[in-house]
Amino acid sequence: MDPAYESKVRESFARQAVMGEIGAVLGRIEPGEVEIELPYRAELTQQHGFIHAGIVATVLDSACGYGAFTLMPASASVLSIEFKINLLAPATGDSLLAVGTVIRAGRTITACRGEAFARSEGRQRPVAAMQATMMTVLGRADVKG
Amino acid sequence: MDPAYESKVRESFARQAVMGEIGAVLGRIEPGEVEIELPYRAELTQQHGFIHAGIVATVLDSACGYGAFTLMPASASVLSIEFKINLLAPATGDSLLAVGTVIRAGRTITACRGEAFARSEGRQRPVAAMQATMMTVLGRADVKG
Amino acid sequence: MDPAYESKVRESFARQAVMGEIGAVLGRIEPGEVEIELPYRAELTQQHGFIHAGIVATVLDSACGYGAFTLMPASASVLSIEFKINLLAPATGDSLLAVGTVIRAGRTITACRGEAFARSEGRQRPVAAMQATMMTVLGRADVKG
Amino acid sequence: MDPAYESKVRESFARQAVMGEIGAVLGRIEPGEVEIELPYRAELTQQHGFIHAGIVATVLDSACGYGAFTLMPASASVLSIEFKINLLAPATGDSLLAVGTVIRAGRTITACRGEAFARSEGRQRPVAAMQATMMTVLGRADVKG
Repeated sequence: MDPAYESKVRESFARQAVMGEIGAVLGRIEPGEVEIELPYRAELTQQHGFIHAGIVATVLDSACGYGAFTLMPASASVLSIEFKINLLAPATGDSLLAVGTVIRAGRTITACRGEAFARSEGRQRPVAAMQATMMTVLGRADVKG
Repeated sequence: MDPAYESKVRESFARQAVMGEIGAVLGRIEPGEVEIELPYRAELTQQHGFIHAGIVATVLDSACGYGAFTLMPASASVLSIEFKINLLAPATGDSLLAVGTVIRAGRTITACRGEAFARSEGRQRPVAAMQATMMTVLGRADVKG
Repeated sequence: MDPAYESKVRESFARQAVMGEIGAVLGRIEPGEVEIELPYRAELTQQHGFIHAGIVATVLDSACGYGAFTLMPASASVLSIEFKINLLAPATGDSLLAVGTVIRAGRTITACRGEAFARSEGRQRPVAAMQATMMTVLGRADVKG
Repeated sequence: MDPAYESKVRESFARQAVMGEIGAVLGRIEPGEVEIELPYRAELTQQHGFIHAGIVATVLDSACGYGAFTLMPASASVLSIEFKINLLAPATGDSLLAVGTVIRAGRTITACRGEAFARSEGRQRPVAAMQATMMTVLGRADVKG
């Protein structure tokens, strides 16, 4: 594990332009677990006024990817191979909290679980569940961090 | 099938605020198949400069959902139950084309396949594959279209 | 919820011929959670001597389906809409324990999580993770239980 | 690509004990595509008399894995990382045909699509769709073929 796991996640997140574009904020970073919070904005909704499933997936995928990234060696980059998401309830409320947790870290492949919660007036309820596969990439010039 | 399938898709898409926010444009609409195009914008990228996997999923999910919606009765709304996406290659190029196709339409459940292509200088190559499950919703006050 | 949830699961499981064929045994049944154990048998393996991923999926799918079934009304049947499984480690050892847990039960759709563990000499380690979608079926003549 | 792709698939399939156990038969083998047929047997069913979803997944996973394996170097082994399956219709009929097709073959990761059809009296209809991720494994002593 890279002892600078927290700073490398912060540095990479800062380069994920889409996070700034949608207003997502990096939260807690621990080995194998990362949180991202997304304040509700009407600009991110689908036709019923809920946060679009793909935007929920966007923050969950980043939370999972960075959860995996914390456990990777310093020279590695992280790439999403695939993910699957179940939408459990409408993503409404004041903000969305995405938690990405490593369930198994291998040399090349890391499996993660993601959970998204809608936060409203101090309470939170589950709105989505993800299962994702991340890849440790070494020595590829076109990907960094 | 609703004979007004095309106009109802256009009307619903126009209410998906996130489509406007990211710059996605509705393309071809046929019974069981819908296309959405997303011009490349640096604001939508992850840390390596590729379109973020979640944004690719966003347009694919809408293409699949609207593909399913074309085959639903006039009074129905469409909701995403779940989807799974494989990222096949970096989403770079001039634009991203997402094609959502129904593979089985049932009374309540519709299964779809989504394919995303990166377009560049008149050529296109596959960058993502989705398999998604959509739900026909009837008589629910909080969802429309 | 059907107060006879346990007996209806036992009765349906007994009719799943494939469970007897592979030697799977129904374990703990609680509202929203069901366990199935599968003793290791060389006849169930793939080319490396591990239990085949599809057989791991078979017991996890049934554990998830019956977990969902415990929370359904007495007149309902359960059907798998879809599932996704990550293989985390070789499925070896004395037996495989599959645990299916409901993460959200809706009127029509129930989302479940499945976890499979390889048991060996009193210890267990995770070998697979599933995320599944089950359907509550009412009034269909060709499916029962 | 290994020029002996067909014989290596046949040899590995013969070592998948579970294929013999359920009565699955290897069919057409081409670069990037493999077929497996499974005659209907009551011993493989779930509680409604349909082939169990997990057994459908078993033959689809092997078809996808061997489809990927045809494109791997001679020294490589193949492992399933994950798969997702949608059950489209009851798996009944005389037999089940599983077709696994590579949609992208990378150095380490291969993405596949699987389609299962129920065959009955000379006709076939789709019953399941899979999307799977396979891994090329080199130099690991515990896996071969």
